[in-house]
Amino acid sequence: MSYSLHERLASDTLAVTSLDLCQVRLMDDSRFPWLILVPGVVGISEIHQLSSAQVRQLGEESCRLARVMEGIFQPDKLNVASLGNLVPQLHLHHVARFRDDPCWPGPVWGCGEGRPYPPQEADSLCQRVRAALGAGGA
Amino acid sequence: MSYSLHERLASDTLAVTSLDLCQVRLMDDSRFPWLILVPGVVGISEIHQLSSAQVRQLGEESCRLARVMEGIFQPDKLNVASLGNLVPQLHLHHVARFRDDPCWPGPVWGCGEGRPYPPQEADSLCQRVRAALGAGGA
Repeated sequence: MSYSLHERLASDTLAVTSLDLCQVRLMDDSRFPWLILVPGVVGISEIHQLSSAQVRQLGEESCRLARVMEGIFQPDKLNVASLGNLVPQLHLHHVARFRDDPCWPGPVWGCGEGRPYPPQEADSLCQRVRAALGAGGA
Repeated sequence: MSYSLHERLASDTLAVTSLDLCQVRLMDDSRFPWLILVPGVVGISEIHQLSSAQVRQLGEESCRLARVMEGIFQPDKLNVASLGNLVPQLHLHHVARFRDDPCWPGPVWGCGEGRPYPPQEADSLCQRVRAALGAGGA
């Protein structure tokens, strides 16, 4: 079985870049800056199913992405979560939260309807995140 | 400033045990097996504010707890999350989810009202988790 992105992740998100372990994807929901790490490992649905080395790498890439998001978006809080109740392929959400966002202080999952980005805005945002990660976001 | 548990975490959760980095606490909500890791580090609200060594240790302790929860509760899915919109002290939720639990497939945060355990049941559950962690849950 070769690695492929779950169809729901593929349809809801846009490609940003790839790190050593994970694909970085932008959730197409302009209500919050929301990025997702998807480890390129086949058949995994839980973090603890990764090898110890992969868990460490995921932690490093998550912190690197979190610092980039903090720098670009200056959120009041980051929400970092592996849920997977609907999409079993392991993926780690990173959501920049603001006290005036439409779901604060509740979680974003299951909260209202997403609002897709205007296409140019999504491209521009992906470019900013990609540049910041490439510049050594760690 | 010395380390102390946030008053909301102290009131909503029960002590299970301590690992090298984190306190392990049981959320007093019998709707789901729900355990929380609280790193014993002062003034931290985000995972990426920990040192690299602490991030690795948190990953190890999280996976150890996740395996213990999988063994005891045999959930359909684990939800692992650092949110902190209401309680800024860094804490990492681990929730054992079931397809027939009252919030599936939505998140547990903000979903209905908690149902505290009968006291003896909470004690017994803490004891089971403590024993499994002590037996080398990794």
